[in-house]
Amino acid sequence: MQRLESLAKRLKEKELALPIWFEEGKLKIIDQTKLPFDEIIYSFSEVKQLADAIRSMMIRGSGAIGLCGAYGVYLAAYQSKGDPENIKQAGELLKRTRPTAVNLMKTVDEMVASFKGSGEDVVAQLEEKAVEIIERQLQFEYQLGENGAELIEDGDTIMTHCHSGALGGAGYGGRALSVIRTAHEQGKKIHVFTCETRPYLQGSRITAYELKKFGIPHTLITDNMSGFCMSKRMIDKVVVGSDRVSANGDLANKVGTYMHALAAKEHGIPFFTATSSHTIDFHTPSGKAIEVEMRDSSEVTQIKGVPIAPEGTKALYPSFDITPNRLITGIITEKGVIQAPFETNLRKVREKVDILQ
Amino acid sequence: MQRLESLAKRLKEKELALPIWFEEGKLKIIDQTKLPFDEIIYSFSEVKQLADAIRSMMIRGSGAIGLCGAYGVYLAAYQSKGDPENIKQAGELLKRTRPTAVNLMKTVDEMVASFKGSGEDVVAQLEEKAVEIIERQLQFEYQLGENGAELIEDGDTIMTHCHSGALGGAGYGGRALSVIRTAHEQGKKIHVFTCETRPYLQGSRITAYELKKFGIPHTLITDNMSGFCMSKRMIDKVVVGSDRVSANGDLANKVGTYMHALAAKEHGIPFFTATSSHTIDFHTPSGKAIEVEMRDSSEVTQIKGVPIAPEGTKALYPSFDITPNRLITGIITEKGVIQAPFETNLRKVREKVDILQ
Repeated sequence: MQRLESLAKRLKEKELALPIWFEEGKLKIIDQTKLPFDEIIYSFSEVKQLADAIRSMMIRGSGAIGLCGAYGVYLAAYQSKGDPENIKQAGELLKRTRPTAVNLMKTVDEMVASFKGSGEDVVAQLEEKAVEIIERQLQFEYQLGENGAELIEDGDTIMTHCHSGALGGAGYGGRALSVIRTAHEQGKKIHVFTCETRPYLQGSRITAYELKKFGIPHTLITDNMSGFCMSKRMIDKVVVGSDRVSANGDLANKVGTYMHALAAKEHGIPFFTATSSHTIDFHTPSGKAIEVEMRDSSEVTQIKGVPIAPEGTKALYPSFDITPNRLITGIITEKGVIQAPFETNLRKVREKVDILQ
Repeated sequence: MQRLESLAKRLKEKELALPIWFEEGKLKIIDQTKLPFDEIIYSFSEVKQLADAIRSMMIRGSGAIGLCGAYGVYLAAYQSKGDPENIKQAGELLKRTRPTAVNLMKTVDEMVASFKGSGEDVVAQLEEKAVEIIERQLQFEYQLGENGAELIEDGDTIMTHCHSGALGGAGYGGRALSVIRTAHEQGKKIHVFTCETRPYLQGSRITAYELKKFGIPHTLITDNMSGFCMSKRMIDKVVVGSDRVSANGDLANKVGTYMHALAAKEHGIPFFTATSSHTIDFHTPSGKAIEVEMRDSSEVTQIKGVPIAPEGTKALYPSFDITPNRLITGIITEKGVIQAPFETNLRKVREKVDILQ
């Protein structure tokens, strides 16, 4: 466990906001459902505890959930002293926690496929693999940040929606916040507008928490204020994350994204999504083919458990919306920034043709 | 006081939601800041108490605030047994509570200018005037509702933002809700989407309360969901109120209105504002000339007193935004529905030319 523990220590010294790490022989996670009001850290010895934490959204975000596959499978190896059957079972348990989390599936499969034999040697093999996966994810965030930061000018005010940040990734900045953080670290004097992101308030809770932690100047607005702020030229760029990008560049992201994109288009404000090239779904031809999940509407009729509507009020909660490609200025990936025509240029990324600009 | 008391009784029998009324010798108001969770009714004997209630937003909405001028001046006459000096002082006190509330100024001036002499005869004169003002405001709401309901078809789903309803008027439906209520009473099977309206939640609290009270089927959404709902053809029309309409038809209304209008335009969904012809401000050439008041941002960083962001988070709270006339399908007034070209057609209303359609 020593290599993973010293990796975590080194990353924390670099002021990374780790969603998951090893410390003093325990697996640790920070409970994202309680942020920013309480910084509760849980210590786990069992994979089952981690699986519960994933299910209850204490740890969330595609990058962070992916890392759970690496940490969890390693923990199983460590606890079972390298018993292959135990390791495989742990992998299956983890995969069942969030059946739609592609990153989690891939990471678990990569871990389970990487070891040979049994016993302490397997523990060492899996620790090495876990370190490799974590460092690869971090490298992705740094590279995404570098690519995106080229679009940000000194003095820019950047608006973001929801949380696409460090705690949803490997601790540097996840996706949208990697771009913002890199621009900030390059010495550009930027300011961030974070939209609160009703109903679950990821923007006011977690994005604002990270911006404060990283010392990046920011202002909170409600989601319905972006149009006003853009009309007053208070916003220069929009950078959001992405749940999914379809083959033609249509973007599925947290509900509200589409309305920000419409307002940005109206005011000629560049609108970017920061994503991984692996999030581009070539099996989905366009946004029309994406089914929008309807979630429990009680999150709309109450805020943090406090009712905001008469008892019995019916509500809707579409978890994301679709922003059509014509509203998108560029798709920032670790392989470069992709611009229109998206269908052609996204295909080039798939074909690994270098389209860096 | 008997005529005002029996008017109130009659109106309540007609299922009106009165914001202010006389009952058992007392002036009553329902505290709108506590709705829909608590229906608290205050009883006042003094104009000073009413002035405090206006200042603290317990009673709000341009129509309702206007009525306070009639009720308040009458109360002063009743309490002072028709002392002219006392009546005038009460009028001044009321006018100072909300210096920008044009309706309140007008109503107080109309009341104070309407009496002659002193003593019990003045009390009777002012009671008659107050009844006239209340009935005139109600007549306005019925007429506005009739005009607007012609635009609503059987089966329509109508989206509204903020609260532009009965408790902000004389009890029938204020502005936007007069249109919706009349269509409903005409037997059209309508459904209403009410946007919660962050930060102050007028939509989830008060609009949803009235829709429930009037038995109009409705669904609550967060403000950032209208674009998604429109893209799924879940909304047929948008009807909102108005803080101010400028001479060219640009609309100042609760923040968020502009973004709904952009989304409606994108999807070819008719967008209407319901207003009074007196709200059209011919001294303001366009929306660009309207200064948007920035309010206390603590309403953004907390919801009903519960913090939703890290301590010390800076926030913005523009109280309204400007929807340019090209996004507006029609301006519904008590004099008829005004369509583009707005500058010309609004001027015709001013010139009292009949443009009913």
